[in-house]
Amino acid sequence: MEPVHSSMTDETIDAFHRGAFHLVQPVGRGHRAGMDAMLLAALVVDDRPVRIADLGAGAGAAGLAVAARLPKASVVLVERSPDMAAFARKSLALPQNAEIAERAEVIEADVTLTGRPRVATGLADDSFHHVIMNPPFNDPGDRKTPDVLKAEAHAMTNDLFESWIRTAGAITIPGGQLSLIARPQSIADIIAACGRRFGGIEITAIHPRAGENATRILVTAIKGSRARLQLRAPLLMHDRPDAHAFAPFVDDLNNGRIGYRRLR
Amino acid sequence: MEPVHSSMTDETIDAFHRGAFHLVQPVGRGHRAGMDAMLLAALVVDDRPVRIADLGAGAGAAGLAVAARLPKASVVLVERSPDMAAFARKSLALPQNAEIAERAEVIEADVTLTGRPRVATGLADDSFHHVIMNPPFNDPGDRKTPDVLKAEAHAMTNDLFESWIRTAGAITIPGGQLSLIARPQSIADIIAACGRRFGGIEITAIHPRAGENATRILVTAIKGSRARLQLRAPLLMHDRPDAHAFAPFVDDLNNGRIGYRRLR
Repeated sequence: MEPVHSSMTDETIDAFHRGAFHLVQPVGRGHRAGMDAMLLAALVVDDRPVRIADLGAGAGAAGLAVAARLPKASVVLVERSPDMAAFARKSLALPQNAEIAERAEVIEADVTLTGRPRVATGLADDSFHHVIMNPPFNDPGDRKTPDVLKAEAHAMTNDLFESWIRTAGAITIPGGQLSLIARPQSIADIIAACGRRFGGIEITAIHPRAGENATRILVTAIKGSRARLQLRAPLLMHDRPDAHAFAPFVDDLNNGRIGYRRLR
Repeated sequence: MEPVHSSMTDETIDAFHRGAFHLVQPVGRGHRAGMDAMLLAALVVDDRPVRIADLGAGAGAAGLAVAARLPKASVVLVERSPDMAAFARKSLALPQNAEIAERAEVIEADVTLTGRPRVATGLADDSFHHVIMNPPFNDPGDRKTPDVLKAEAHAMTNDLFESWIRTAGAITIPGGQLSLIARPQSIADIIAACGRRFGGIEITAIHPRAGENATRILVTAIKGSRARLQLRAPLLMHDRPDAHAFAPFVDDLNNGRIGYRRLR
């Protein structure tokens, strides 16, 4: 991410994937996309002309990253906040994103909608090959964020994963893939929410460095699969104790040069 | 483990911790103790004169390993199977185990007992500093085992962790520690069963080698803690691709030379 400040405004245009796409984001408020969104995007490895839903897309970082890396994919960015959805639309309107924008659209809708109201927004049953999500979180122990936009992005309800993964289960085709990035603390909620909707769960812990606790988990699962959960080899963000640079594999994921393929 | 076959019998006497204690075990039937029990035992790091309950102790491997490493600890081996409990008593009667046997006893009881019946067996409320368990498991996909004793040891019911951790929650003192080893597939059941009973959950994945999926998880938690779950740096059984020997740290854990300490 290389921010380019638009002077006189409260937004930036940030380059991702070394310039393959750009994102218009608010400054000093709202959730700003970074590594999490890029790692999430890496979980979609599919060369077919697939339809992908990015639930809670924010300014669209993860969804556009998938579209940038997979030239046959089309992406629907689903975002509840009118403010953030507006940023996503601005991103699609950037001349730098012209090619990607032909394969992307924004739906302003609450991810937790069910039944007819959900279908009415454009999220039909069994209609996406992939669903990706980087659900908001908020630690009760953390200081309260003074910013409403950011608070909304980080607000965590007890049944967030249940309601988000319920929607994912409804709109994914049988055999389609759910991909998400979350905190390790959410691992049980995620597995419980997958329930009988998604199986073949594969979890990869992300540790900043060797010997340190995980800070994120990458999770993929297949709709209708009965395969057993697998806890995969972890990823280290930094593979040498004193290095500030990312490990080469993580850097490749972050810059869209490769995807992170499921085991099966 | 260096098995010494008692000829003319259907049992062996196996040395653990390089001879620090011995175990009488059935041959060709029942669950035979090994690395899992030794890693479980390593999770108890406490130099005080603590009371420890080993739930579903089998022949007593994990509980006796803790007693062998911690000279002030006393251990209660809880085992439902009269057959396996008899092996545990035989182990305590071995002259090689004389010192440890003074600090160990066997209770023949079902771990899932509740209330008065549970207390009547000797498992009183709030009476153990540590509870350890290596619960039986059985993959629905695995071939059926022809052996009743082994089937019993490996039988997995849906709510096994709920009922076992419920008992652990009852008999552990406030602030006391639960320690267990399990398959990665059980991670969500374990966290759910800890519920509000145990917090400060620390999970360590064990991978056979770098790049391979985890085959076991080590879990500790503290009764009444509200601390957040942590996913710790994983352990590799073998730290070089072509090495059959255990990684030095794992070998030290396996042989009782060191414990595996919680982060907090």
